[in-house]
Amino acid sequence: RISWISDIIVVVSPENIETMKTIVEKYGHKKVTVVKGGITRHRSIFNGLKVFAESEFSKYLVQKPEVVVIHDAVRPFVEEDILLEVVMAAKEHGAAGAICPLVSTVIAASADGCLDHSLERARYRASEMPQAFLFDVIYQAYQQCTDYDLDYGTECLHLALKYSNVKAKLVEGTADLWKVTYKRDLYAAESIIKDNLSQQICVITGVQEDAVQVGFLLHESLKSQVKVEVIPLSLCKNDNHLQNMFSGGCYNFIYMHDKQSAMQETQLLVDMLEKSNITFSYPVMLILVHLNSSEDISFSTGMEELTSIKKFAKEVKIKNIWVYGLLIHYK
Amino acid sequence: RISWISDIIVVVSPENIETMKTIVEKYGHKKVTVVKGGITRHRSIFNGLKVFAESEFSKYLVQKPEVVVIHDAVRPFVEEDILLEVVMAAKEHGAAGAICPLVSTVIAASADGCLDHSLERARYRASEMPQAFLFDVIYQAYQQCTDYDLDYGTECLHLALKYSNVKAKLVEGTADLWKVTYKRDLYAAESIIKDNLSQQICVITGVQEDAVQVGFLLHESLKSQVKVEVIPLSLCKNDNHLQNMFSGGCYNFIYMHDKQSAMQETQLLVDMLEKSNITFSYPVMLILVHLNSSEDISFSTGMEELTSIKKFAKEVKIKNIWVYGLLIHYK
Repeated sequence: RISWISDIIVVVSPENIETMKTIVEKYGHKKVTVVKGGITRHRSIFNGLKVFAESEFSKYLVQKPEVVVIHDAVRPFVEEDILLEVVMAAKEHGAAGAICPLVSTVIAASADGCLDHSLERARYRASEMPQAFLFDVIYQAYQQCTDYDLDYGTECLHLALKYSNVKAKLVEGTADLWKVTYKRDLYAAESIIKDNLSQQICVITGVQEDAVQVGFLLHESLKSQVKVEVIPLSLCKNDNHLQNMFSGGCYNFIYMHDKQSAMQETQLLVDMLEKSNITFSYPVMLILVHLNSSEDISFSTGMEELTSIKKFAKEVKIKNIWVYGLLIHYK
Repeated sequence: RISWISDIIVVVSPENIETMKTIVEKYGHKKVTVVKGGITRHRSIFNGLKVFAESEFSKYLVQKPEVVVIHDAVRPFVEEDILLEVVMAAKEHGAAGAICPLVSTVIAASADGCLDHSLERARYRASEMPQAFLFDVIYQAYQQCTDYDLDYGTECLHLALKYSNVKAKLVEGTADLWKVTYKRDLYAAESIIKDNLSQQICVITGVQEDAVQVGFLLHESLKSQVKVEVIPLSLCKNDNHLQNMFSGGCYNFIYMHDKQSAMQETQLLVDMLEKSNITFSYPVMLILVHLNSSEDISFSTGMEELTSIKKFAKEVKIKNIWVYGLLIHYK
């Protein structure tokens, strides 16, 4: 995703190595090398760094970088901006890390479980990830670590200070860098992803006047809340309109038509979505809206249509495309 | 909600006093006194404590308690267990507070924005709420506070130590005591509430055989995931079955019938829900399921029924009851 990153080492616990390799392959990640983790955080990071420096890993053919970024998988929302900031700061200072304000006061407990002292909240910060280092700074630090450091330490910036005498530059991070730790954090992460996925809608309209008009009205009523594009189906087939939506991060599509059966067009749209590769990262939603104004449609005809859409939806769900059918009957 | 708490003082910023008083009245909270807050955390807490001790507040007629609990409104999921634990510990030690493990390493920054030192994470804890104090311990501490303490301090346990020489007992809190701080925390809080509300379902069945049978099948298929009770409508009218569901924290009701119009029964259920007062705290969901097996129902007849439910739903939504209609047509 970020062009200036040349290699990514993913450190994984031994029992998950195969799963991770499958994921890397499935999503076509080219820069990724999967490495076995250790029994503690620091031992795992050290294993990751060795890939760049030790001959036993030479089979991976990864060149030693000038700067290395260390990041936790439990912080899924890291943006390019903050990565660039810590890398630039590390180039200048030897080490750099993201920080956030403390949310709660930090206190020290005495041996009997009582308050010993409390820290003045304004003087302290929470150390977050990503952190970046000149490779030699952090690698030399890890080489000098004691077993106690490797087993009980948690802070890479501390190692850079202790063993390489480098005072890390601290960079203000964003709230999105928090660590997914508790169940509530999973809820939050899910909502953030859903929020991001629902920023854009693409309305595709059939050639019929009603479909075009409803597409226009939908645009009018939604445009204050989300980014909406309305594209005639004819343009989807021939040029780059739909491709632009894919690359622009649109995951929501509505196809508006008044045909009795729109299977052919639906299949075309599903094929285009599949080819675009956007279904790799997140589910794509496709809502088929059938506008029906004929006088005497029976309940069972409507049901049959919706049943066939349901069957189709089941088939394409494994492709990460979620199809919904909506039958609007009006006079 | 908790019988051993005699009075609750809610400290609110001046501009929100009226809103808070309206809320307190609306939900019929009897133990609550609303007090004006100060410009900092400590000044607000001090204002709250004064209600128990100073003659200018004598109009509120609140008796000075032995133990006082201090809690933040930004921690909405406090349970009786932890309240009782800090209160008992405060009775013994003079002060007590909930703590949680640190999620991130805490570091101190130097004046130039670089790492000064990092704290050994295992030795420190995040100080959370609730906290409890012998009233005299915390009130005397606040009386001795300097303006600097009141303006820049954040930790009540620290004041008890500094001015009343009381070492607070630290009590392990639960993960749910976290502080709703960022937008993601609102997402998490919302999901936790939804989770709690969806623990129980009450299925009410009409007298018809199909309704009873579908009610039974629903029970079978849901019972592994949620607590499900199936109650015949006839029992709802006459005795305590439904009342028990209300007091047991059930917020989801499904009424299963095969009558062409079920308005009378629906109205009865809505009246019972309204009288139960459970709609004060959270929205109640009522799904009306019409099982229809007649051969030739037209599309428009079905639509008319759903439209009338939609209209009814709009009316009762202001009572915090969310009504949905589901028409199931089958052979």
